[in-house]
Amino acid sequence: MLGRYYPGQTCSAAGALELVGERWSLLILRDALFRGHTRFSDFERSLGIAPNILTKRLESFVADGLMVLGAPPGEAREYRLTEKGRSLKSIIVALNDWGDRWLQPGPIDYVHAGCGGVIKQTFACECCAKDVALDEIGVRRRNV
Amino acid sequence: MLGRYYPGQTCSAAGALELVGERWSLLILRDALFRGHTRFSDFERSLGIAPNILTKRLESFVADGLMVLGAPPGEAREYRLTEKGRSLKSIIVALNDWGDRWLQPGPIDYVHAGCGGVIKQTFACECCAKDVALDEIGVRRRNV
Repeated sequence: MLGRYYPGQTCSAAGALELVGERWSLLILRDALFRGHTRFSDFERSLGIAPNILTKRLESFVADGLMVLGAPPGEAREYRLTEKGRSLKSIIVALNDWGDRWLQPGPIDYVHAGCGGVIKQTFACECCAKDVALDEIGVRRRNV
Repeated sequence: MLGRYYPGQTCSAAGALELVGERWSLLILRDALFRGHTRFSDFERSLGIAPNILTKRLESFVADGLMVLGAPPGEAREYRLTEKGRSLKSIIVALNDWGDRWLQPGPIDYVHAGCGGVIKQTFACECCAKDVALDEIGVRRRNV
């Protein structure tokens, strides 16, 4: 999987980006995650995306295990997110936080379903549990 | 800026992805962020990237304000990250966490410079301050 675009680069971040980084992929996933869209026609209408591109993207999400395709009897086919797909929320919130701060504030907030408060991405240290600032984050080769 | 790929979609996440989502962009930024690379030849050597692509990417990072180009007297030109560029760390850690979990564990950990503990992406609610699980994150149109 990691070799698709970047042979020789075994980077988890690059691998993740392969699945969401193609044109339109992120917006389709956003609508599935946060608007509950499951049908081809829902995505087509909300995004104004060309049908051939949409077909390609949805098929690749199924192939990559981000969605499963179901067809309730007598109804249109549905593309439903798997747990793997649903957990992409973490990446979307990170992209959104950065874009809101450095490009321009977008039209939405990510909010806590419990109390309605605004959600922000943070970083925790597994060892000392502290809230960690970005400039305190370094990198270390894993012992494998 | 947001219109470059997705006309009509004023989405901060999509805007952020435009800057890091092109082939090779993320890996160049990763090497700048975590390996301290600043010179064309450093990136070229560590990534094995074609020089014409590397030139294009570095120029776009400068144009987008992620890097500034400097030329110390008598030395090779240096591409240095700005604060805007440095703050992309948050996106890279999010991509890496997801890829580590759902694709395959990569070769590196992001660690706390203070104690060496492993860093994980978390979500906090600005209102009730709780650690928020992904399935408790919803979306709300901002009042603007």
